[in-house]
Amino acid sequence: MKVIVIGGVAAGPKVASKVIRNNPDAEVTIIEKGEFLSYAGCGLPYYISGEVKTQEELMATPVGTVRDTVFFQNVKNVNVLNHTEATAVNPDKKTVTIKGQDGAEEDLNYDKLVLATGASPLRPPIPGIDLQNIFSLHGVEDAEGIKAMLSNRKALNAVIVGGGLIGVEMAEALTHCGCRVSIVEMLPNILPMLDPEMAVLVEKYFESKGVKILNNTTVTKFDGSEKIEFVETDKGKIPADIVLLAIGVRPNVKLAKDANLTIGETGAISVNPQMQTSNADIFAAGDCVECINLVTGKPCYIPLGSTANKQGRVAANNICGINDQFQGVIGSSVCKIFDYTTARTGLSEKAAKEAGFDPVIALAPAPDKAHFLATAKPLLLKLIADKNTRKLLGAQGIGLGVADKRIDVAATAITAEMTIDQLANLDLSYAPPYAPAVDNILTAANILRNKIDGKMDGVSSKEVMQKMENGDKFILLDVRSPAELEMMKIDTALNIPLGKLRGELAQLGDDKSVEIIAFCKISLRGYEAALILNHAGFKNVRVMDGGILMWPYKK
Amino acid sequence: MKVIVIGGVAAGPKVASKVIRNNPDAEVTIIEKGEFLSYAGCGLPYYISGEVKTQEELMATPVGTVRDTVFFQNVKNVNVLNHTEATAVNPDKKTVTIKGQDGAEEDLNYDKLVLATGASPLRPPIPGIDLQNIFSLHGVEDAEGIKAMLSNRKALNAVIVGGGLIGVEMAEALTHCGCRVSIVEMLPNILPMLDPEMAVLVEKYFESKGVKILNNTTVTKFDGSEKIEFVETDKGKIPADIVLLAIGVRPNVKLAKDANLTIGETGAISVNPQMQTSNADIFAAGDCVECINLVTGKPCYIPLGSTANKQGRVAANNICGINDQFQGVIGSSVCKIFDYTTARTGLSEKAAKEAGFDPVIALAPAPDKAHFLATAKPLLLKLIADKNTRKLLGAQGIGLGVADKRIDVAATAITAEMTIDQLANLDLSYAPPYAPAVDNILTAANILRNKIDGKMDGVSSKEVMQKMENGDKFILLDVRSPAELEMMKIDTALNIPLGKLRGELAQLGDDKSVEIIAFCKISLRGYEAALILNHAGFKNVRVMDGGILMWPYKK
Repeated sequence: MKVIVIGGVAAGPKVASKVIRNNPDAEVTIIEKGEFLSYAGCGLPYYISGEVKTQEELMATPVGTVRDTVFFQNVKNVNVLNHTEATAVNPDKKTVTIKGQDGAEEDLNYDKLVLATGASPLRPPIPGIDLQNIFSLHGVEDAEGIKAMLSNRKALNAVIVGGGLIGVEMAEALTHCGCRVSIVEMLPNILPMLDPEMAVLVEKYFESKGVKILNNTTVTKFDGSEKIEFVETDKGKIPADIVLLAIGVRPNVKLAKDANLTIGETGAISVNPQMQTSNADIFAAGDCVECINLVTGKPCYIPLGSTANKQGRVAANNICGINDQFQGVIGSSVCKIFDYTTARTGLSEKAAKEAGFDPVIALAPAPDKAHFLATAKPLLLKLIADKNTRKLLGAQGIGLGVADKRIDVAATAITAEMTIDQLANLDLSYAPPYAPAVDNILTAANILRNKIDGKMDGVSSKEVMQKMENGDKFILLDVRSPAELEMMKIDTALNIPLGKLRGELAQLGDDKSVEIIAFCKISLRGYEAALILNHAGFKNVRVMDGGILMWPYKK
Repeated sequence: MKVIVIGGVAAGPKVASKVIRNNPDAEVTIIEKGEFLSYAGCGLPYYISGEVKTQEELMATPVGTVRDTVFFQNVKNVNVLNHTEATAVNPDKKTVTIKGQDGAEEDLNYDKLVLATGASPLRPPIPGIDLQNIFSLHGVEDAEGIKAMLSNRKALNAVIVGGGLIGVEMAEALTHCGCRVSIVEMLPNILPMLDPEMAVLVEKYFESKGVKILNNTTVTKFDGSEKIEFVETDKGKIPADIVLLAIGVRPNVKLAKDANLTIGETGAISVNPQMQTSNADIFAAGDCVECINLVTGKPCYIPLGSTANKQGRVAANNICGINDQFQGVIGSSVCKIFDYTTARTGLSEKAAKEAGFDPVIALAPAPDKAHFLATAKPLLLKLIADKNTRKLLGAQGIGLGVADKRIDVAATAITAEMTIDQLANLDLSYAPPYAPAVDNILTAANILRNKIDGKMDGVSSKEVMQKMENGDKFILLDVRSPAELEMMKIDTALNIPLGKLRGELAQLGDDKSVEIIAFCKISLRGYEAALILNHAGFKNVRVMDGGILMWPYKK
């Protein structure tokens, strides 16, 4: 069996190795345009920041073996043609046309073909985009270019265009390199995979680290003589010694399109769960394919190294006649921003509405470990569930605390289609250095149960601010203790500490229909206050989701 | 509705607060023998080590409010009678007999009663057990006693009897206090919730921290005049200035027994999923009840604060007429030992066999984050799955790396009855500072798939050692690189680096039926070697589970 794999970075080498493991007699060839094989693209920001010292570390196995062509030949028995471009796929003849470094073309026969052509960074047709020192970050060469530009120079003005995952990771890396960093984002917030009330808190943290966030801002021109000097936007001009374009990637589908393979609605190659394209002898995997979002059941394009690896295994098994399926993804991601973690999985509140669900949300800010330990750090967790089925739809976690653990638990629960009731009773591992006795995710699940069961009516801090601005009549009731007020307070709120509330109901007046919005630090006591008020006959009591910890406004 | 709750530490206050939240008109009374209410018992080792400075921190809410009787009265509207003992439950009259500090007895009426009587530490009838400075660790008073004993004294000899969770946590705490610590354990290994090959590595780590582990050792006598001076065992005499008994707890079931409530086979109170005892008006929750192990379907007794809280919520809901169920636990636990984490969930390999499953295991030692980052630390993960159903049964994780995250994912997957194939394709959050591109738990799941699908035949390091001792004829084949051998090697192993194996098969001789056991650092290359050897015609090739990282022997 002759197997040709086009692409040698992530999915490609995985397919090749696994085919040989399944079938040691197979003749497997990888065609790779560049020099490098199987490197950790996700590690590039850490190579730029200096945390990873050498290129080789990104290309080595955990025991330090560099995965070069010799490695693939000797260890994996995979033939590698690097510096070689696949210029055409000819499904009728079952051949691939390749062009070597010398420009000579040649046709190679295949029994099975794998497209692992990856993706390329978007470079929008903005005037001046070809000026020097405007970089993308896609391969080792890009990283070397950025490192060379930064070496021995301090206090450069760096402008990152695009506030997605690569943009924010590079904001940290460039800050570590001594740059003054701005992120220019077209949308109202960075990190669009988060809901806005979460993204806004990440932005506040970024600003505390000296990174400037320019939202709702569109780049109109890159200005400079030879090198970039200014980034012009619809909001003004920003000095720039270096620009990083991080506005996303586009799947490399030219070969697939030219071979008349089906391209999906996302613009990436369409594959079935066996990772087969519309041609049964051609498989595809990695950043060039779309896959199913398991929560919506619809195709999505979320290129990730972790997904590429799973898809590669599935493709290899099916190539060797072993039935295996890749069902899809749920959109899990995590990134580190200085000491802050932002992680998410499943659908955001916004995406859940768009997909036709009736989402209910819980905001649970709390320490990530037993609060009496000095190692406990704040974690803000948001869960999204469907009101009708009670199934968990999505989760977002941000903060100095451990977010990735809770998000991975949520990802597992979403995949298993768990309800919030099952989630709330999960037997998670507990000891004070690892979690509160009731883990943050269980607390959030219980808030969801209270809301869906009609025990608690939530209102977002944004809605409260809008009511204030509209001059609506309502009582904003802060039930924290006087000491807590000294740290942070909302000026117009009435303060009655929870312990005194039962005795001081008179302060709220005689009109039982008045709207009261109760809150505390995290709105657990706010919830207890609402129950007391409901019991006292007040008809219109709500709780501010997440308490004052979710209040992003100045006062 | 009158609700009486007996017990004020964990489950009791939870039931009381939740009943009032559900039904503000309910009249709820907590009866508590001691002074203290609702304190974090799991925090006591950290109070002794000094990481937690004051008692109050263990009794406070996350915002610093101390949960004393006034707090329960004012905030929760729960009546608390502390320093009060419940001496009898009279189900026919629906009364509880209580005895106050003055010794006067009184009968209180209830509509619903909750037994949250907790558990007591076992104190075996060993001669000398009443000597001074022999402590248990169960309540704040015990912790104060130990602290007083240790204050301003250094280099004491501390002997911990029992190597369970409290024993090992206290081994760290007492080491921090300057003690020379020994753990005396009757069983062959400490931490019996782990399989032996995992426990043995924890023991090695403990010894590297100066803690002496005495396994297979039974205490026969506590010796001394007034104070403890020596612990006598069947293996010899150990000097001791302080002894901590940590051999487990026994549920407090006297009241329940006397009231003719059903006691389960574990010795704890038997309850249904509504947390009802055999008397429909009497509920029970927390450390005094047994519950169902969701993997075996059988009752188990695993007292934990995290479980108590969930059970308390369910009991309160059912008391208030809201249907709610606590289905059971899967035995998740985690503990911190210096910088080492040991976590586990579900069934151990041993327990899986005993429960009638056909367990297959995977050992996956690997860095817990992208290996090119300096923050990556070793994590050794073991998964246990059932060969027939392919369902995940259990997981154990130990090491300096992040174990609790993988164990919580496993706990969620076990609860959802996921197969290892579903597990292997989970979309977990990935970025280099949080996980390898293929998370440790996915790697382990893939090893299980390879084993169950017959692609890989594993053998434990223990079995290899036995074969060596028996003088069995076999080739132990180390396929690591020469540089790796310098760190650690097995003297009798033949070394052929994986990359050279295809060319040097002659070294293995002509007898294709010879048994070959291949390994590398973690046995991934060992697996590749086995595939190469199988392809070359060798008929009897196995892989040593977990590689040399799972080799606990001297050579």
